[in-house]
Amino acid sequence: MQLSKLYFPRKTNLPDNLDEYKTSEVVEFLGIVEYPPKMSGFFNILPLGQKVMRKLENILINSAYNFNYQEMHWPLLQREKIWKQSGRITEFGKDMIYTSQDYPGFVLSSAHEEYFTDNIARNIQSSKELPAIFFQMGYLFEKRKSRSIIRSSEFPVFSTYSLSEDEKQSKNNFKSNEEFYDQFFKGLGIKPLKIMDGETLHFVYPNQEGEHYIILKSIFEFASPSERKFSQKGLGLAMVRPLGTKYPCDFDVGIIKEGESIHPCMETSAVGLTRLLFAIVDENRTSNGIRWPDSIRPYDVAIVPRILENSDCFNYALRIYQEKIKRGESVVFDDLKHNRKKARDALGIPRSIIVGNKGNSRSIEEVLNE
Amino acid sequence: MQLSKLYFPRKTNLPDNLDEYKTSEVVEFLGIVEYPPKMSGFFNILPLGQKVMRKLENILINSAYNFNYQEMHWPLLQREKIWKQSGRITEFGKDMIYTSQDYPGFVLSSAHEEYFTDNIARNIQSSKELPAIFFQMGYLFEKRKSRSIIRSSEFPVFSTYSLSEDEKQSKNNFKSNEEFYDQFFKGLGIKPLKIMDGETLHFVYPNQEGEHYIILKSIFEFASPSERKFSQKGLGLAMVRPLGTKYPCDFDVGIIKEGESIHPCMETSAVGLTRLLFAIVDENRTSNGIRWPDSIRPYDVAIVPRILENSDCFNYALRIYQEKIKRGESVVFDDLKHNRKKARDALGIPRSIIVGNKGNSRSIEEVLNE
Repeated sequence: MQLSKLYFPRKTNLPDNLDEYKTSEVVEFLGIVEYPPKMSGFFNILPLGQKVMRKLENILINSAYNFNYQEMHWPLLQREKIWKQSGRITEFGKDMIYTSQDYPGFVLSSAHEEYFTDNIARNIQSSKELPAIFFQMGYLFEKRKSRSIIRSSEFPVFSTYSLSEDEKQSKNNFKSNEEFYDQFFKGLGIKPLKIMDGETLHFVYPNQEGEHYIILKSIFEFASPSERKFSQKGLGLAMVRPLGTKYPCDFDVGIIKEGESIHPCMETSAVGLTRLLFAIVDENRTSNGIRWPDSIRPYDVAIVPRILENSDCFNYALRIYQEKIKRGESVVFDDLKHNRKKARDALGIPRSIIVGNKGNSRSIEEVLNE
Repeated sequence: MQLSKLYFPRKTNLPDNLDEYKTSEVVEFLGIVEYPPKMSGFFNILPLGQKVMRKLENILINSAYNFNYQEMHWPLLQREKIWKQSGRITEFGKDMIYTSQDYPGFVLSSAHEEYFTDNIARNIQSSKELPAIFFQMGYLFEKRKSRSIIRSSEFPVFSTYSLSEDEKQSKNNFKSNEEFYDQFFKGLGIKPLKIMDGETLHFVYPNQEGEHYIILKSIFEFASPSERKFSQKGLGLAMVRPLGTKYPCDFDVGIIKEGESIHPCMETSAVGLTRLLFAIVDENRTSNGIRWPDSIRPYDVAIVPRILENSDCFNYALRIYQEKIKRGESVVFDDLKHNRKKARDALGIPRSIIVGNKGNSRSIEEVLNE
């Protein structure tokens, strides 16, 4: 990719010191997302952000397959009547997005328990098919209007839904999910606090922009309203939750166990991908850009002809670039006219190969981003 | 994956001869998708289908990066006013899905030209940033009610949108897209007819379930209504189309070229992923299952203990299975009680390692699926 052609609206218009900005603003400066004007609640993910999102998704998907989870895809546009059957439409109703009267009876998905139970759990006949854990990489929708990737109207979510034949198997599925997220966050160098709220395990990233209030008692806990002045704030990244037999009961879904029909238990978990992206940027941002974790870094090296107008220098640099492309390396060609170092730092490219005016192997200098 | 736990509702209930069924039914028998009851227009993609979809997506994404295309993600829920600005709301209006009056002013995306122009093209300043081709792996929505993966209300689509400074660059972008799909279909062993309709290039897969009528004149062309009785039918898989300056004009988007402001040209292309899946199944289905193309095959080998109740045999087979899992092979463990060979054929597993009663290396037999 030539930096002159990379879609990165701020590349010639970067602030001098990113420390002065909130992380939900920094993600826009760095070319990860953009908030289009007059579209609060929504964002576009830009090429740099999408490269990172693809890597995050692949890590999640590969890890899920290693955990023997099965991938499903449920529709995003769901039948309202299914939501009525669980009674959750009263709980979520005012936040849910409905279709208009000329195509009535649909809602945009704000969770998948209902579809999972009515479509999948219903087709599972026997306790011998359990435990079974399913996952979906999908989108959820809510009425929201903020200008932020952590509170948007439409957001990508990795979620799991599982079935178990009894409490013991249910605890094992819960444990499996907990281990899944432990490994995942560890691999990314993110250290969320693990907080139990009732039976639900939350992974909360300490951050001023979050919605949770956290207080240290014997362990970290959510603060009650009166404790909030002593608390720190945190952002919910992921959760793991046992669901008992509620949904199988609501939808009259049973399995045969030792000759008798019983309601199976369910468990769920989820991680919000743009919240995760927020936490990764927050954790790794510097005053002039970002240092991406190795496993999700979008570009490894920039080839920089020192003087663009010097054809020896330019062509020699181009040749190095093309050879690296052929070898499958993750490389950019810096042909920007202005703010070159500043743009490379913003994009988080850790290493530059600078080609001097002579345009030969002796004029090469390798520079690491500090 | 143990076959007993794989979510594949038809595994014990497969028809004897698949030749009697249409491909849109066969995809359900083979455990690729399911059409939930009372939800016409929608389908769930099952674990087998999702494994294939992931591989198709990865081939498309990697190929797009090799072509130097940039990935973007636009919202699925879009502002109605943007669609009014291009005037296309009258063209698509009756097929588009709107949000209800308590969250008004949104439509579910049925294309991306509008957002591309208003959000991305608007931020590109100079002809020096062109040509630039962008792609999105997204979902499109229309009011549809059929029970088929080729005409659904919600469907996954890979699409490209590009900008060029003049007709010549526009033709190059078109050529690049054409080459992209040529390579892609060739790699999958799919041979669509290439049909020009005005300036639009269509990739049409000959099939009785398709919506196009095709007739051979000097080359294949779409048939006029009076020619239909001499025609064959075909299914549109992909298209490449120049858009001229319509959208930049509608949205008043200009770029600077040699000191002057001009309207850039646009081009687009798209491939429907579930239509592609349909064509792949259609091309490779047999009377008892499917032979997946190598590059997207979900499972390579099944380990089959001949007698499940024989613990020597079962445990030895399990050990082989676990070793293959450790080596990262794509393998299933066949612990089904009934219809074992039939289920393996349906899933398209080309090779079985059958472990005999003695449960040792001499009792192993390797069988290729005919």
